[in-house]
Amino acid sequence: MAPAVPPEEIERRIRAFQAELAAGGLDAALVVQTTDVFYLSGTAQSAHLVVPARGEPVLCVRKTLSRAVAESPLERIQPLRSLRELPGVLAGAGIRSGRLGLELDVLPAARYLDYGRRFEAFELADCSAAVRRIRSRKSPWELERIRGASELLSHVPGWVAEVLRAGMTELELAAELERLLRRAGHQGLCRMRAFNGDMFYGVVVAGPSGAVPGGTDTPLVGPGPNAAIAKGSSARPIGRGEPVVVDLVGAWDGYLSDQTRTFSLGPLPVHLREAYERTREILHRVAAAARPGVPASHLHALAVELAAPYEGFMGLGDERVSFVGHGLGLEVDEPPYLARGYDEPLEQGMVFALEPKLLFPGEGAVGIENTYLVGAGEAVPLTSAGEELLEL
Amino acid sequence: MAPAVPPEEIERRIRAFQAELAAGGLDAALVVQTTDVFYLSGTAQSAHLVVPARGEPVLCVRKTLSRAVAESPLERIQPLRSLRELPGVLAGAGIRSGRLGLELDVLPAARYLDYGRRFEAFELADCSAAVRRIRSRKSPWELERIRGASELLSHVPGWVAEVLRAGMTELELAAELERLLRRAGHQGLCRMRAFNGDMFYGVVVAGPSGAVPGGTDTPLVGPGPNAAIAKGSSARPIGRGEPVVVDLVGAWDGYLSDQTRTFSLGPLPVHLREAYERTREILHRVAAAARPGVPASHLHALAVELAAPYEGFMGLGDERVSFVGHGLGLEVDEPPYLARGYDEPLEQGMVFALEPKLLFPGEGAVGIENTYLVGAGEAVPLTSAGEELLEL
Repeated sequence: MAPAVPPEEIERRIRAFQAELAAGGLDAALVVQTTDVFYLSGTAQSAHLVVPARGEPVLCVRKTLSRAVAESPLERIQPLRSLRELPGVLAGAGIRSGRLGLELDVLPAARYLDYGRRFEAFELADCSAAVRRIRSRKSPWELERIRGASELLSHVPGWVAEVLRAGMTELELAAELERLLRRAGHQGLCRMRAFNGDMFYGVVVAGPSGAVPGGTDTPLVGPGPNAAIAKGSSARPIGRGEPVVVDLVGAWDGYLSDQTRTFSLGPLPVHLREAYERTREILHRVAAAARPGVPASHLHALAVELAAPYEGFMGLGDERVSFVGHGLGLEVDEPPYLARGYDEPLEQGMVFALEPKLLFPGEGAVGIENTYLVGAGEAVPLTSAGEELLEL
Repeated sequence: MAPAVPPEEIERRIRAFQAELAAGGLDAALVVQTTDVFYLSGTAQSAHLVVPARGEPVLCVRKTLSRAVAESPLERIQPLRSLRELPGVLAGAGIRSGRLGLELDVLPAARYLDYGRRFEAFELADCSAAVRRIRSRKSPWELERIRGASELLSHVPGWVAEVLRAGMTELELAAELERLLRRAGHQGLCRMRAFNGDMFYGVVVAGPSGAVPGGTDTPLVGPGPNAAIAKGSSARPIGRGEPVVVDLVGAWDGYLSDQTRTFSLGPLPVHLREAYERTREILHRVAAAARPGVPASHLHALAVELAAPYEGFMGLGDERVSFVGHGLGLEVDEPPYLARGYDEPLEQGMVFALEPKLLFPGEGAVGIENTYLVGAGEAVPLTSAGEELLEL
């Protein structure tokens, strides 16, 4: 079996991560989150990846060694029978003390405290920003996969035209679209990094549901199927003349793409149609400004400016979120964040979803979203579904 | 809008949690994980639930206050504009120092360290075992919901008989069953508590895929759609005469149920048919022994004994898992764990899934799973689909 991720890809990622570790004054990192392990090793088996700032990484596999060996191009792969073996693995790489990086943004506190006891000679530090930073710059190999995920989403307008009927519920529409995505090759599971963040295809809401706020940091939340889930589609029947917002995540060969389109059964009221056209304009103006070197926060500020005087841009009142786009790749919430306060400049190879949305109390939401690649000039769209408001 | 969770339910849960806090020498707890917040407050909005060991809890809501107020029967609900307000909320409840419980099994280390700085006067402690313990005893109201989730799964054999065709892939079969579940009322998203644990409906695998091991602590893993996901269905076409294992999680009104059935297109080889009958026998013998007061580990030992001399019980070789069942409710991985080393006795009102499975290298898996309620005598099955091997 050939490795799923090319060896040169893994080699480049490990070297980039080691450069970050060295720059951050870390002697080594212990990577344990599935997505980060997969990114750096090419396998998503249950493992601890020991990465010294210099020298060869060692993949210590708890379960399943044979798959890890078949999948990962790394040279040093060994079984991990007990966490007690880990200090020895570090010592074998010449590292007996110093600063040890852990993914503190995702590692549960109980495990952090346990590692603290096991690595008494070390100072524990955070290496999560370093992993997320290198992951934010996509390689051509990764872009192929994000294009594959985007391709799945290109069918969405046709599918909606085929299945949307007056009186069907948001949940029924969601179920049909999920099935069509899955049959087209969608991997099903989508991963999200944030604590308490969970992710299920996206959000399909119609009419007033589009303006129902909730606990997630997203412009669209929706009522959800029940109070425990509390987001996404509800059992409300879809009526004529109301905006149907279909915000779905494509997922293919590990990688994600994010796209929103707006539909209606019969004509939308004129003010909502105009609002939709405004979100398209914001999308294109911000994408045109999304060049390398531009601080991501500037793009948020530009979007806010272009949305005036609409009051429901990216949420209503206190529920407004302070971003207009987010990076994505193996997870749906990666840097760059096109958000207030995130002043890091865009770099070539970054991929982000841009999602201007306008909400109207009691009426719902309209909006659009494409996934873009930061190129040499204007951002390059990766999602390609038609952008017209589809009044069916 | 009436609260989704009855007020007396929330009242009882809070009192049970406070009793655990007091017994564990904790002065208060700060609950932040969505599922635990929902369990104790009735709302899944983004919030910090402050629970003093004595007195009234305060739900501090970051987003969305209006939904939290509508959904939660708690009396004290207030906005949380900044984490800086939290020590004041505790002080308002008369708690200025002491031991403060946090959900250390799920709380990210970075947030734990941040709370440590914010609550300098406190000793931080772990309250996660306390939450999980009270959550393991289900109320009649919760059982209604688990029965609802189980009801969804009762249709699975009929659905498989309807859609399974030779040459369709595991992923195609999974997609059809997911859609039928969703249309029948499945909530979509299923939550899992474990770090790196992610959950997507379950596992649908056929033939050799049933014996492919992997990184998750489950008897069935499967190849998955790609190396990034690395579990579940693959694009392999389903052939005649091979075992098709359909292990799906029902999810309704927040609560889960877990069920496995085995199918084949045409007759299964005799040794696999016999193995399936053995898993049925293990299921029934262990369920009959699952009475209140019995240590959960005894049930695992009994299953292992009943499975002899089969070598592939709950996995092959080193990949074998050391459990035969797991509690479930709002999450799929709750206590009790019917596992080696988990010696806690079963209690009335606990709910667990029992899933004896036998693996055969290169041939796949056969097995069965029901969700049970611990009653006064033998465990009471909540899943009710026919248990016969279905050779279609």
